[in-house]
Amino acid sequence: MNDKNWIAVDWGTSHLRVWAVDGARVRAAAQSDQGMGVLARSDFEGALLALVADWLPPGQVTQVIACGMVGSRQGWVEAPYRALPCVPLAGGLVPAPTQDPRLSVHVVPGLKQAQPANVMRGEETQIAGFLARHPGWDGVLCLPGTHSKWVHLSAGEVVSFQTFLTGEVFALLATQSVLRHSVSGWDAAGFKAGLTQGFERPDRLMGRLFPLRAEALLGGLDPGVARARLSGLLIGAELAVARPYWLGQRVAIIGARDLAGLYLQALAEVEMPATQVDATEMTLAGLDAARALRHVPTEP
Amino acid sequence: MNDKNWIAVDWGTSHLRVWAVDGARVRAAAQSDQGMGVLARSDFEGALLALVADWLPPGQVTQVIACGMVGSRQGWVEAPYRALPCVPLAGGLVPAPTQDPRLSVHVVPGLKQAQPANVMRGEETQIAGFLARHPGWDGVLCLPGTHSKWVHLSAGEVVSFQTFLTGEVFALLATQSVLRHSVSGWDAAGFKAGLTQGFERPDRLMGRLFPLRAEALLGGLDPGVARARLSGLLIGAELAVARPYWLGQRVAIIGARDLAGLYLQALAEVEMPATQVDATEMTLAGLDAARALRHVPTEP
Repeated sequence: MNDKNWIAVDWGTSHLRVWAVDGARVRAAAQSDQGMGVLARSDFEGALLALVADWLPPGQVTQVIACGMVGSRQGWVEAPYRALPCVPLAGGLVPAPTQDPRLSVHVVPGLKQAQPANVMRGEETQIAGFLARHPGWDGVLCLPGTHSKWVHLSAGEVVSFQTFLTGEVFALLATQSVLRHSVSGWDAAGFKAGLTQGFERPDRLMGRLFPLRAEALLGGLDPGVARARLSGLLIGAELAVARPYWLGQRVAIIGARDLAGLYLQALAEVEMPATQVDATEMTLAGLDAARALRHVPTEP
Repeated sequence: MNDKNWIAVDWGTSHLRVWAVDGARVRAAAQSDQGMGVLARSDFEGALLALVADWLPPGQVTQVIACGMVGSRQGWVEAPYRALPCVPLAGGLVPAPTQDPRLSVHVVPGLKQAQPANVMRGEETQIAGFLARHPGWDGVLCLPGTHSKWVHLSAGEVVSFQTFLTGEVFALLATQSVLRHSVSGWDAAGFKAGLTQGFERPDRLMGRLFPLRAEALLGGLDPGVARARLSGLLIGAELAVARPYWLGQRVAIIGARDLAGLYLQALAEVEMPATQVDATEMTLAGLDAARALRHVPTEP
């Protein structure tokens, strides 16, 4: 067993990302489109080896720590959700079955909330990474993405969270709906205008979509303004619904740089200062923290 | 010119529907998927002839009256929008260029509203049909569909209207988003529950989508309940935004039977009685009314 060199894996529905790590230093990275969504259970080991085989010294066992949809019922091995409230890496890791003797693979379980019903897979690892980097931090984390999440942390535990389809709805409207003919590019003032409308009157959101098309047809609305306004409307409405999470709290945003920047700007517009940290760094820090748990027996 | 036998055409983005009409009696009907969206300008005449050639007596000119996206900039001929307020069939029809000497084709123009920007193509014909059947009717028309419309009618004129992407958003969420794994079938109580939530708190709509997935994963939410609740949430939110249209008004719903029935039920839940009429009948009645305008010169 080589404990210094290990492999970090973020395995989502549509993507697989891997890193060769030496202690806490990343030596190499790779990725593919072999997400959970396109793999049968027996395909996972091969999809992983396709990216990491060259990183495995012969005659040694290399530890692999994986988070994300790889642990879902349709994944490599089901890592049952842990129930809130709990620390983000609760109850130990779940070993995945392997053929290659060079591999020892463990999967991080997701978290579940009973009421209102909610689940996460992958974000718990970013939260653990954030807490590893900011010990004792209390407050609210915002994790924007396809499905953005707002997470209330207290005393190292995840207390509650809420999920929004904002990223997915934006992508569907911008690329598949009638609005697709009128949106492309970006305009900062358009984003701000949409944000204000979406935040102040989230109840009117559904009435503000078609006008993006009609204004383009009748008034030549700039497609960059239209696309940014659509994004602002949706993020503004999300902020309005999530207000009980962030109001009066310390807020940190964990996300890819551009998207996290939009949420940072959105929160600034409602006079909520927030800090921004990189999602990939938090994933790696969280997987590193999970490594320490790999010998704890699982409690399904 | 044979004035008794004519052809009615409803030509949308994705479908072409045609009827052979004798006076006001439908003798035959046909349809295809040759919607405006898949046709170049030079393809329209052929797509029409593919359905109606057998209905055209040799040596005679048969009148064809068409409404819908066939009159858009990407259609057979552009029939520029008429500006509100106006009667639904304002400003005469626009002739489409034809090769076949048996065809005389005219297109109904759509309507536009300057502020807030809005457009319609096809619904103006249904509105004209409704007014032909209900002379002197004042009130509000609801036209549910992919893009549902609420239309304020007064003294025979369209005064204002609002458009919602409700049908399109429902279809995208139910078939393309992460919710697709959790929604199928229908449950009447689920629709009613979603309707109440959507209508009373439209501002929370964006927070109520992901729970449909999470409840399925954690609590085994019935997929029929989930799909009907999603529909109820969206229609309820639409009703909330459209309240200035229907509150205290006489309301009629023009739509396909099942969908119009949902809107009828939704309005009943908020104690707004409404009447329901069939969309295809109104389209045919409106095209029949448009026939009388075909010799009026166009005013672009």
